Amino acid sequence: MSLLVAITGWDPAPWVERFRRLLPDREIVTLGEPFDRRAVHYAASWKHPPGALAGLPHLEAVFSLGAGVDHVFADPRLPDVPILRVVDADLTNRMSEYVVLHCLGLLRGRRRYLDQQAERLWLDDKKQPAAADLRVGIMGLGVLGRDAAAKLRVMGFDVAGWSRSRRDVPGLRCFAGEAELPAFLARTDVLVVLLPLTPDTRGIVARPLLEGLARDGVLGGPCIVNAGRGGLQVESDILAALDAGHLKHAVLDVFETEPLPKESPLWTHPGVTVTPHNAAMSDPDAIGRLVADQIRRIEAGEEPRFVVDRARGY
Amino acid sequence: MSLLVAITGWDPAPWVERFRRLLPDREIVTLGEPFDRRAVHYAASWKHPPGALAGLPHLEAVFSLGAGVDHVFADPRLPDVPILRVVDADLTNRMSEYVVLHCLGLLRGRRRYLDQQAERLWLDDKKQPAAADLRVGIMGLGVLGRDAAAKLRVMGFDVAGWSRSRRDVPGLRCFAGEAELPAFLARTDVLVVLLPLTPDTRGIVARPLLEGLARDGVLGGPCIVNAGRGGLQVESDILAALDAGHLKHAVLDVFETEPLPKESPLWTHPGVTVTPHNAAMSDPDAIGRLVADQIRRIEAGEEPRFVVDRARGY
Repeated sequence: MSLLVAITGWDPAPWVERFRRLLPDREIVTLGEPFDRRAVHYAASWKHPPGALAGLPHLEAVFSLGAGVDHVFADPRLPDVPILRVVDADLTNRMSEYVVLHCLGLLRGRRRYLDQQAERLWLDDKKQPAAADLRVGIMGLGVLGRDAAAKLRVMGFDVAGWSRSRRDVPGLRCFAGEAELPAFLARTDVLVVLLPLTPDTRGIVARPLLEGLARDGVLGGPCIVNAGRGGLQVESDILAALDAGHLKHAVLDVFETEPLPKESPLWTHPGVTVTPHNAAMSDPDAIGRLVADQIRRIEAGEEPRFVVDRARGY
Repeated sequence: MSLLVAITGWDPAPWVERFRRLLPDREIVTLGEPFDRRAVHYAASWKHPPGALAGLPHLEAVFSLGAGVDHVFADPRLPDVPILRVVDADLTNRMSEYVVLHCLGLLRGRRRYLDQQAERLWLDDKKQPAAADLRVGIMGLGVLGRDAAAKLRVMGFDVAGWSRSRRDVPGLRCFAGEAELPAFLARTDVLVVLLPLTPDTRGIVARPLLEGLARDGVLGGPCIVNAGRGGLQVESDILAALDAGHLKHAVLDVFETEPLPKESPLWTHPGVTVTPHNAAMSDPDAIGRLVADQIRRIEAGEEPRFVVDRARGY
């Protein structure tokens, strides 16, 4: 009962070493070498090549090695076995660090003051809005969205959330579905996008959504923070909204193409903050332990945790 | 029973207008005009000129109009009446916004990633420490220090506090006095200075303190955040520690001389972040309401709130 490590984009070697340590009684195999396809019962995937998991007759489960499972579903020949997501407290904390950092940065004019420092400018424009004056809207109320919402509220922000299907989060004003999206956007000064990437959410951060954001907020225009997936956004629409003055600032950790191409105008646009898809890096050791625990559960006849709902895609 | 508004550095006009609105039955007078010195029962001060409050035979109390009272005690001819501090929830929240913003910014390499963006660099050095890996030490456990500590802990930081006299804060590891300062510094990666400025604390952020900070932390060197008072720090020692590699970064909102002189090397040092003393701006309306409430208490025979202990100087 071997585990196949099927990775592209990352170096597989540390993962192989980690799984050999955590699962000393298993054979750990990789795509780059010959292996017994009939022996593979589990696959650990990060952007595995399409078709790489087909023809594994005893495959029982596919473990995603990072946040999100859109990279797994990108395979049209994905076998019909349970897909297991990563839910990791460390990853959740890191995502909330990123969201709170950038919401505070927008609130407190971090880039403006860095520019003033570079010019040795000590200005008396000290009047700044307080967190309570800034309406943050979180799209996506899964584990990540709920944790970010709770921490933003501790900092004093006026937070609401939106999700495709109804979610009730104690103490949080929640909007749901297409019908309530306009009202959610109209009360949002900073939109934080933490949606999963599915056929329903692809390209959702586009002109209609951007034009629906509040224009009467304390920052002089709405802002977005996308720490979800690049496929959620239409970058040409974001740039057009910035240039038209419909958007004040975009903090982007994810992009349509990654790494972000050198020629992208996002790099140098004064209204854009770029980070290299590092909002919430997985802790490989924590994820390795989760995979080992899931295998233990499956073999003990227990339900594995964090099974993806294929109909919803997350 | 008039109120004297004694301000330098700020425009007194909005304060006069505010007090006239909040205290419609009082005469509000200012230093720049003739007034009946015998009628003055209260003074509202922001850096009042030395001696300006002397010779007011019926003065009952002096209200500080901003955080800290060192500006009041800077007057050698200060009359012997109660000095009342500002404690304002809004100001406390704003200070915590600043502290959390900059601790997260140091944790997540905010300036490094801005520099990389400017160079269109998408690097794979994504491994970053988590908040739990960073030991934040707060000097000063008054209202501001305790609120910042609580919020930093929500974000996941490993927080401890130090105060001159023993303070017990539930759930927080607290150090006290000179004797425990070395142990506190030795476990501190990011030192947040929120001390009042008193004869005991003047110049405390100097070489011995900086050299006592942890050198084994996850950022590759200790950092400081001074959002207290410029008089707490010795800027030549901070620059020397940065250049000697004993200090990785200094986030400074306050300076020995304010506005920070154009020729100060702090403006352009790559290891320094300068903000123009705007970490926590007072909300004038909230402070005005506090002063009005204090006057009401005094005249009703109640104890006013937030009376300064002259022996401690805060």
